[in-house]
Amino acid sequence: MRVLAKELKNAAERGEKNIELSGWIHRIRELGAVNFIVLRDRSGLVQLVLDKKYDVPPLESVITVRGDAALNEKTPGGAELRVSSLECLSRAAADMPFQVNADVTRTGIEAVLDQRALSLRNPAIQAIFKTQATIIEAFSAYLREQSFTEIKTSKLVSGGTEGGTNLFEVEYFDRKVYLAQSPQCYKQTLVASGLERVFEVAPAYRAEKHDTPRHLNEYVSLDLEMAFIESEKELIELEKGILARIFEEIARKNSGELELWKKNGASVPEPSAVFTAPVISYEEAVKIANEESAKKKGVRIFDINPDAERYVCEWALREKGIDLVFINEFPRRHRPFYTYPLDAALTMSFDAIFRGIEITSGGRRQHDYAAQLEVLPRFGIKPEGMEDYLSIFKYGCPPHGGFAIGLERLTAKIFGLSNVKEASLFPRDRKRVTP
Amino acid sequence: MRVLAKELKNAAERGEKNIELSGWIHRIRELGAVNFIVLRDRSGLVQLVLDKKYDVPPLESVITVRGDAALNEKTPGGAELRVSSLECLSRAAADMPFQVNADVTRTGIEAVLDQRALSLRNPAIQAIFKTQATIIEAFSAYLREQSFTEIKTSKLVSGGTEGGTNLFEVEYFDRKVYLAQSPQCYKQTLVASGLERVFEVAPAYRAEKHDTPRHLNEYVSLDLEMAFIESEKELIELEKGILARIFEEIARKNSGELELWKKNGASVPEPSAVFTAPVISYEEAVKIANEESAKKKGVRIFDINPDAERYVCEWALREKGIDLVFINEFPRRHRPFYTYPLDAALTMSFDAIFRGIEITSGGRRQHDYAAQLEVLPRFGIKPEGMEDYLSIFKYGCPPHGGFAIGLERLTAKIFGLSNVKEASLFPRDRKRVTP
Repeated sequence: MRVLAKELKNAAERGEKNIELSGWIHRIRELGAVNFIVLRDRSGLVQLVLDKKYDVPPLESVITVRGDAALNEKTPGGAELRVSSLECLSRAAADMPFQVNADVTRTGIEAVLDQRALSLRNPAIQAIFKTQATIIEAFSAYLREQSFTEIKTSKLVSGGTEGGTNLFEVEYFDRKVYLAQSPQCYKQTLVASGLERVFEVAPAYRAEKHDTPRHLNEYVSLDLEMAFIESEKELIELEKGILARIFEEIARKNSGELELWKKNGASVPEPSAVFTAPVISYEEAVKIANEESAKKKGVRIFDINPDAERYVCEWALREKGIDLVFINEFPRRHRPFYTYPLDAALTMSFDAIFRGIEITSGGRRQHDYAAQLEVLPRFGIKPEGMEDYLSIFKYGCPPHGGFAIGLERLTAKIFGLSNVKEASLFPRDRKRVTP
Repeated sequence: MRVLAKELKNAAERGEKNIELSGWIHRIRELGAVNFIVLRDRSGLVQLVLDKKYDVPPLESVITVRGDAALNEKTPGGAELRVSSLECLSRAAADMPFQVNADVTRTGIEAVLDQRALSLRNPAIQAIFKTQATIIEAFSAYLREQSFTEIKTSKLVSGGTEGGTNLFEVEYFDRKVYLAQSPQCYKQTLVASGLERVFEVAPAYRAEKHDTPRHLNEYVSLDLEMAFIESEKELIELEKGILARIFEEIARKNSGELELWKKNGASVPEPSAVFTAPVISYEEAVKIANEESAKKKGVRIFDINPDAERYVCEWALREKGIDLVFINEFPRRHRPFYTYPLDAALTMSFDAIFRGIEITSGGRRQHDYAAQLEVLPRFGIKPEGMEDYLSIFKYGCPPHGGFAIGLERLTAKIFGLSNVKEASLFPRDRKRVTP
């Protein structure tokens, strides 16, 4: 019976004999009379002690060993295995183009991504994605508890909801379709159907040509939409609840993972602090950003651009003790056509800015058919071809709204990663389509 | 404070006054002195009783009503609301092209799919997708309990893993990429990384030109892959555990949903019966299918085709009491290049056939680099361009395997739907790319 690395100490304490471990050779240390191997499995690292008589296969080879365990506080996990048999299940070639057991927090991003199949073997890199799995789980669980239904909608659409630019074209038999930029129409369709509350975790696509540390051409969107809200404020409260749950679950399950990136500042905010995050209007946010910019002799801020996002978070951390800010009441011109108006100039919309970057955009949506029809021309959109979408509102649609959290951005900010691509298993950008 | 339809009886029993309900007008019945409305919300249906003085908006309009509740065993939920105020939040147009409150189990599939935004309002159609959400939840929860990590991999790939045919082409800036047919390479990469056990719930694409009740060009694949297995038999045991959990959760949460399709035979097998499902070899399966075919004076069966899938399930239901069959030991020629050999002719592979249709294909994978290289030419595949994939095996890869469950097929069979498209929220086929 195989035992996992993290279970060895318990097995040692119980006095179990002839224990079996399987995993990857993470590190080899030759020392006088014996060799030491650090073995890696899905649960972590564990030390093996081997007599010199054993041939040690190259790093990253997969082995199964048997032996008796001994407590040893100096080893990872607090126990080691004295090996009495070794079987090599898969011998690694010696020409490995990536050092798996290096400190990857110091390795350049290009090497890490070019050698993705190998860099994913590094425990610090795995830590990012084990934690990302916790984010998805916590997001989904929190919403299910509030009677949201999980949905899976098509990623092949006949047009864009965000204005028709930045779409990837797909050859679909004898016609062209596009990769969905968001499940916006579909979320609204399902809210209007009477499901009322829906969420989706799925890829989203933006054919943006610029290549920045903030952008991915394919990202995972944590999307939700809900009926019977009066304003974006209820959505902000919901997002606070979601983020608090995510941070709570990460603190509970992934403290070891965060520890590996400690020197990058990896951490999650106190869950309770999330509820104290300030909600400020777009106008206030621009004002605060300008005050912060002036202090640093920076340029004048006219809009919530990346500089402004950093400034408002610095302000919030200093003044409110958390670097999470909700900005609401964006001007009409900054939001999609389907955003619900607050007045002639402003909208019931919001962004969430976490540690200097926008992680969420959302708001209440227009649910009135006549108002929706009226607004389209002002956004240069023709109602022709929008019939399916418009029919949502024509036949009874409750007041509703929603938002999306960018999974990779949230993950990157938790780990203190400087590039969002590091938080995508197989990132896609202008140049990168492999592996 | 809003009360949900299903909570009204409790509120009535507690003697609450001036209760608020919100939802869609599902049905209107005019009767002498009063009108009756059946109101639909996310929790179900509830009856409203209104004085004639109220103007009743058209069907599907969204309203908020207030009033006192009264117990009434003849109504859905066992209580009704005597309305004392009615507000119309969204008035539906009267020219509705789909009758939402009809018996959709008798409506043709084309009308249901053409009018998807409206047909999704029907409780029986919603039932399919509420139950589908339970499948996703149960699949994910079961695997997390067994230390599987959830992954999200790219759907844009530079080539296909299933032989390079049936790929949808995407215009990706100045080059062409393809929509992923499965996360096969990525699952294997992550298993080989040391994560060992991974799962993904994501869209998969097949550019198959034929349009059948069994096929979707875009479907949701419940994928998993795990390390340190010896044969496909461990995967079959795992799938039995997963299916038993899914059926258990559906029986617990969605009995009301199944009830709406009772006359189509909607049901889930007894969870415990799943563990008794027969595992037969490909050779046996062909033999059984031929025996069944002969009984019905059918044609000779040479392969596990759709007819054979139906026949082996009929056999299993009659002989073993469950219409679920696992077929293993498929001949080499029927399986992808990466399948692990059992001997010169057969492979460690399997399919799961449920109620007459294949819902799963999987198996142990080749993990040996030299053996993988050797087999490629026999499948007409050149190692050039496969370097990323092959590097998985070159640098230490444990024995492993996995499988995928087709979400829509499983859902369709649970509800007794004759076309898998009915189990996709927004299905894509040769002709259909909207809504």
